[in-house]
Amino acid sequence: MPIKNDLLLRTLAGEKTERTPVWLMRQAGRILPDYRKVRNSLSGFKELVETPALAAEVTIQPVDILEVDAAIIFSDILVIPEAMGLPYEMVEKRGPHFPSTVRSGADLDRLHVAEADGVQYTLDAIRETKKALDGRVPLIGFAGAPWTIFAYMVEGGGSKTFSKPRGMLYENPQLAHRLLQMITDSTINYLKGQVEAGADLVQVFDSWAGVLGPRTYEEFSVPYLRQICDALTDVPVTLFAKDAFFARKSLAELDCRTIGLDWCMDPVASREIVGPDKVLQGNLDPAVLYGTEEIIREETRKMLDAFGPVKHIANLGHGVYPDIDPEKVKIFIDEVKSYSSASR
Amino acid sequence: MPIKNDLLLRTLAGEKTERTPVWLMRQAGRILPDYRKVRNSLSGFKELVETPALAAEVTIQPVDILEVDAAIIFSDILVIPEAMGLPYEMVEKRGPHFPSTVRSGADLDRLHVAEADGVQYTLDAIRETKKALDGRVPLIGFAGAPWTIFAYMVEGGGSKTFSKPRGMLYENPQLAHRLLQMITDSTINYLKGQVEAGADLVQVFDSWAGVLGPRTYEEFSVPYLRQICDALTDVPVTLFAKDAFFARKSLAELDCRTIGLDWCMDPVASREIVGPDKVLQGNLDPAVLYGTEEIIREETRKMLDAFGPVKHIANLGHGVYPDIDPEKVKIFIDEVKSYSSASR
Repeated sequence: MPIKNDLLLRTLAGEKTERTPVWLMRQAGRILPDYRKVRNSLSGFKELVETPALAAEVTIQPVDILEVDAAIIFSDILVIPEAMGLPYEMVEKRGPHFPSTVRSGADLDRLHVAEADGVQYTLDAIRETKKALDGRVPLIGFAGAPWTIFAYMVEGGGSKTFSKPRGMLYENPQLAHRLLQMITDSTINYLKGQVEAGADLVQVFDSWAGVLGPRTYEEFSVPYLRQICDALTDVPVTLFAKDAFFARKSLAELDCRTIGLDWCMDPVASREIVGPDKVLQGNLDPAVLYGTEEIIREETRKMLDAFGPVKHIANLGHGVYPDIDPEKVKIFIDEVKSYSSASR
Repeated sequence: MPIKNDLLLRTLAGEKTERTPVWLMRQAGRILPDYRKVRNSLSGFKELVETPALAAEVTIQPVDILEVDAAIIFSDILVIPEAMGLPYEMVEKRGPHFPSTVRSGADLDRLHVAEADGVQYTLDAIRETKKALDGRVPLIGFAGAPWTIFAYMVEGGGSKTFSKPRGMLYENPQLAHRLLQMITDSTINYLKGQVEAGADLVQVFDSWAGVLGPRTYEEFSVPYLRQICDALTDVPVTLFAKDAFFARKSLAELDCRTIGLDWCMDPVASREIVGPDKVLQGNLDPAVLYGTEEIIREETRKMLDAFGPVKHIANLGHGVYPDIDPEKVKIFIDEVKSYSSASR
């Protein structure tokens, strides 16, 4: 089915479009009262992730309400460890928790490479979303980067330092590479399943990239991202390695289409590092949306000017914070649309 | 009193010393059984901070046990908000918590600029430590950077995003600047008091530098760091802005002597950005100390080679993790000493 609003796809193709496309990380989520209504009717976050009709519903909400140029499937990066045999719980206000972790070869031997249908509910949600979207905007699939998934599986939950997974890289690098390879194989299966189910592009989130140094990132993250990029030949791939300023050059050498920037990465400096070919995505400081309308519009214009009119997908530099007023989000989106079309 | 082991001071003076000096952030702390013994005899962390004889005792422990080339006074960066009228609690395993926060002008009006004697117990601890050290090694004083202290005072505790203080920068920048100035004035008073009490050098920790983007860091952190550097004319100042890779050039333009690097900042690239004049401090990945003896020695040598033989103070790239085996710390220190003296 042809996509009616294909601004994002044409931007990915390198075309100078009539305006800059815009969407927000975590646009389907707690900022929207409509989301909270669905979420509060359920026993927990995972029920929402695992119920295709509801996941599809909240995926489409921001397309209707915020008028963004893309939908991103509602799911969680931790579905992959669960599909590999390491279940997680989502603890209200505390974040994810893994009752079991991977600290030894024996722990690893209890896991398996996941097939795409190990996360059948998300594939079904993608199919339902595609049908309901009826080609209005492209649908983005996603997964966590192998390093980030590894970090959760070894640590057992969120952490400021992720010292346990980082320790394993020095203590037992062979075991680390074995687990990273299993995660990578599972992720490739899963992302291929998402594409088959209808995802028009996919984003890989390396949320904890920044706890690694440049050399460890080169050894324990980049090769696995490369495998993912090389395996996904049918759709454009976006890599978002939060805080990994030092890895921009390496990521630019991978066969991805887009590199996401967080708000600490200067757009002009990043373009210089990355070169002219890739699309860049980002990177307004999410905290700007706490500001007045004037500040939001001003900061958004500065951001658009810094990226320039081609090969840029407007977004925040990280997920929108859950306590942001949706009206402030609309101001951001409106300014991207009006300023970028006026300056073409 | 002349300092017997003056390796660190001569390194600060730019001298090529017989070997590289070494100390560790958080060397006085939970890694040492001797520390835990003192700590467990007390009702809480704050009692240790506020009891000069005990703070002095744990300050000196790593000099005896680990044979580091400097002591750093045992205290906490949050003593400054408390001295300004915003008390904190240290919650076991959860971190700091402020019962009151600063969100409005009215909140700010209840605070005052702290004089040095608002933190008399730390000044007393410095005096006791100096006496007990008897010139063995230099003593480092420290404080939090104004932005980092501000972040805690507005957020009310630790946070992954510090979205509330970052929001205030956009929502009410005037109020933010007023509070930052009060913190800066208090910090200058406090650090001058530390120098008067005997601190041979001081380090300013901008632990949450990396949640700001380049432009907000220039506006809300750098000018206050500049004031501190300009006010402390009697001792060398070290600035450690964790994760603020984008600020290295700006920090290099301040009147500080040393710039601390975390493990994500490449020593060679950092030296290029910072120029030849400053001393650099750091930056072994703290997770290396989970590795085998061989790995620790190898990674330490790589680090020393990357920094070169002059204007380098060896350290980790962040505080030592509390569950690290002290024997592993000793291997790191031993390798710094033996490898750097052999390669002179």
